[in-house]
Amino acid sequence: MKVTVSRKAHFNAAHRLYNKDWSDAKNENIFGKCSNPHYHGHNYELIVHVTGEIDPQTGYVIDMKLLKNLIKTEVEDLMDHKNLNEEVADFFELIPTAENIAVVIHNKLKPHLKEEWKLSITLYETPRNYVSFSD
Amino acid sequence: MKVTVSRKAHFNAAHRLYNKDWSDAKNENIFGKCSNPHYHGHNYELIVHVTGEIDPQTGYVIDMKLLKNLIKTEVEDLMDHKNLNEEVADFFELIPTAENIAVVIHNKLKPHLKEEWKLSITLYETPRNYVSFSD
Amino acid sequence: MKVTVSRKAHFNAAHRLYNKDWSDAKNENIFGKCSNPHYHGHNYELIVHVTGEIDPQTGYVIDMKLLKNLIKTEVEDLMDHKNLNEEVADFFELIPTAENIAVVIHNKLKPHLKEEWKLSITLYETPRNYVSFSD
Amino acid sequence: MKVTVSRKAHFNAAHRLYNKDWSDAKNENIFGKCSNPHYHGHNYELIVHVTGEIDPQTGYVIDMKLLKNLIKTEVEDLMDHKNLNEEVADFFELIPTAENIAVVIHNKLKPHLKEEWKLSITLYETPRNYVSFSD
Amino acid sequence: MKVTVSRKAHFNAAHRLYNKDWSDAKNENIFGKCSNPHYHGHNYELIVHVTGEIDPQTGYVIDMKLLKNLIKTEVEDLMDHKNLNEEVADFFELIPTAENIAVVIHNKLKPHLKEEWKLSITLYETPRNYVSFSD
Amino acid sequence: MKVTVSRKAHFNAAHRLYNKDWSDAKNENIFGKCSNPHYHGHNYELIVHVTGEIDPQTGYVIDMKLLKNLIKTEVEDLMDHKNLNEEVADFFELIPTAENIAVVIHNKLKPHLKEEWKLSITLYETPRNYVSFSD
Repeated sequence: MKVTVSRKAHFNAAHRLYNKDWSDAKNENIFGKCSNPHYHGHNYELIVHVTGEIDPQTGYVIDMKLLKNLIKTEVEDLMDHKNLNEEVADFFELIPTAENIAVVIHNKLKPHLKEEWKLSITLYETPRNYVSFSD
Repeated sequence: MKVTVSRKAHFNAAHRLYNKDWSDAKNENIFGKCSNPHYHGHNYELIVHVTGEIDPQTGYVIDMKLLKNLIKTEVEDLMDHKNLNEEVADFFELIPTAENIAVVIHNKLKPHLKEEWKLSITLYETPRNYVSFSD
Repeated sequence: MKVTVSRKAHFNAAHRLYNKDWSDAKNENIFGKCSNPHYHGHNYELIVHVTGEIDPQTGYVIDMKLLKNLIKTEVEDLMDHKNLNEEVADFFELIPTAENIAVVIHNKLKPHLKEEWKLSITLYETPRNYVSFSD
Repeated sequence: MKVTVSRKAHFNAAHRLYNKDWSDAKNENIFGKCSNPHYHGHNYELIVHVTGEIDPQTGYVIDMKLLKNLIKTEVEDLMDHKNLNEEVADFFELIPTAENIAVVIHNKLKPHLKEEWKLSITLYETPRNYVSFSD
Repeated sequence: MKVTVSRKAHFNAAHRLYNKDWSDAKNENIFGKCSNPHYHGHNYELIVHVTGEIDPQTGYVIDMKLLKNLIKTEVEDLMDHKNLNEEVADFFELIPTAENIAVVIHNKLKPHLKEEWKLSITLYETPRNYVSFSD
Repeated sequence: MKVTVSRKAHFNAAHRLYNKDWSDAKNENIFGKCSNPHYHGHNYELIVHVTGEIDPQTGYVIDMKLLKNLIKTEVEDLMDHKNLNEEVADFFELIPTAENIAVVIHNKLKPHLKEEWKLSITLYETPRNYVSFSD
């Protein structure tokens, strides 16, 4: 009897989309204003979904307080009020699109969770654009 | 050609998390302030999802008016403005976590729906915490 | 490594639910006030989900600007501020329920996307009622 | 010690913007696609605000159940699933813009409330456009 | 040049509406299911609004971090995961309607803010019912 | 008979809070992580409110299409996907707090509106923090 538990969190960050192998003109052509060299930013709204069996002792899949703390130490402390390109090592070589940020967040949380749990990440870059990634 | 139809509803209830097999200290240790013996409460926001074939005569999977009424008689009339631990028999022995409430709601609605339909329950305990359960 | 990219859009339209093979009395009986011959209307909120591999050159599954433009030309230009029954050819013979509108939108977008991508449509008819359809 | 009590409600309706004193061309020029003769529609989200003194016996300004019922009988029963231009007498001569609908709703509710209470109406025509009117 | 700064917070609590001067029958008659002796509960969503001059040194009316902390120590620590009737002294003699809770929150925050600032409280008892109180 | 018309818009931008007259240490002390020299960013959600008389010819206070276009040319084109400190001249000497951004937006829109209209600006810096400014 598997249940999915979902917890919302958020962080605010600056970024730009830029492929170092391309000319500035090509970056501007592909990424448009998202490639602005002075950066722009977003309020990222994050939802972390963990799917597993209910523990009959607690009625929990995972204690939300633990999940909340894990998101804080692994994601918020790393990315909140940061420039993703300049200050978060995962994006020194990887373009910080919403897609890539979701995969990075997944990979940071996964080792802290039980192997049999399924982990999914939903990341809103704006209230109108979001991405989802699951193992 | 299967489509999922989703209907939102809501109910307000008091509850506490408490395992009768544990000491008060252990309950306090595991459940923290959610174990407050005086209870606390939530506005539960419920989404019921039914997946099935579109009926070519009506263009419906299921008439939303029927689904709305079913949620009212099976869930809202039972749980709205109630103390889940004290007044809802399903939780006399089962801890009313969001996970368990979602499973209970699923099991109350399921017998009223066509066997070939898939039923999923999403239950928001707060705007930041929610759970999902599907058959 | 598949990621789902989701983009929100919206359109406002009038419609009524009416089966031409039935008497007015049967339409009224089945569809209730949704069958009002003078029409009623909705703000449809649409979410288009595209699932595919991340392109390592761009970090994108699909450029959101392209997806936004595609939704505009294929859906909004056709349905926004229109009477679905009277002005949108897809509904001259098909009842414009949310279920059917979602399938029609899916079929309009699908040929413009890569064959290997999965396409899902979520359509809110009201903030409390919505449907989802995936290939 | 005045407090404002606010209650949300909603109705779905068709309408068009059309000034009978103007040519069709001028209507089209001024109102654009909102003047479509086949109508379009909206999910109107309504918030009714009543400001008054707290009754020390009840702790209420006004019982929300009474306010909910009043909105149902005076507004929802009249406008929900209706064509405002064709079926609601208040708009036979008055253009059903959000501004005018808000004033009409105000005037329907006002006589049922205590004279000393202030009444304000907020009406969302879409999630992005709304109007407010107060006495 | 006065600007209003608004900060959202939330707490979950149980309560019941009950006037000790009335019989149980009258309480039931006036308050309906809100008077359930076993309590029910809500996710209260709180917005605190402070209006004042912008400090030209900081560009702030009030530092949001200070306001966030003030709401935590004065409101959340007192009311979150509590039974308002049984555990919050302000409601031992005062009925914990949304109206009264808003006034109590106002009075707890007011002494900590500059005298020349205007303080307003918005309190959502449910996503559909809310109250506002200003000095 | 004055009505307020409200229109939502949005822009994404990077910024930092920094007072040039202060040492870096004092900036860090006062503004905390908001002072990060590498910038961070937000999805700013903007609501523009215009209060005036209903024009009996149109039923409008102001045509929403005009207001939408005005917000685009005066605000979005200037601030969207920009670094406010580095690229928007209004903030070369003024700290881009939400308070100051709201006042700047007000002053850009005001000259384009009728003198007798009241203009109010609501600016969400995050879904939890927002400011309001009115003439």
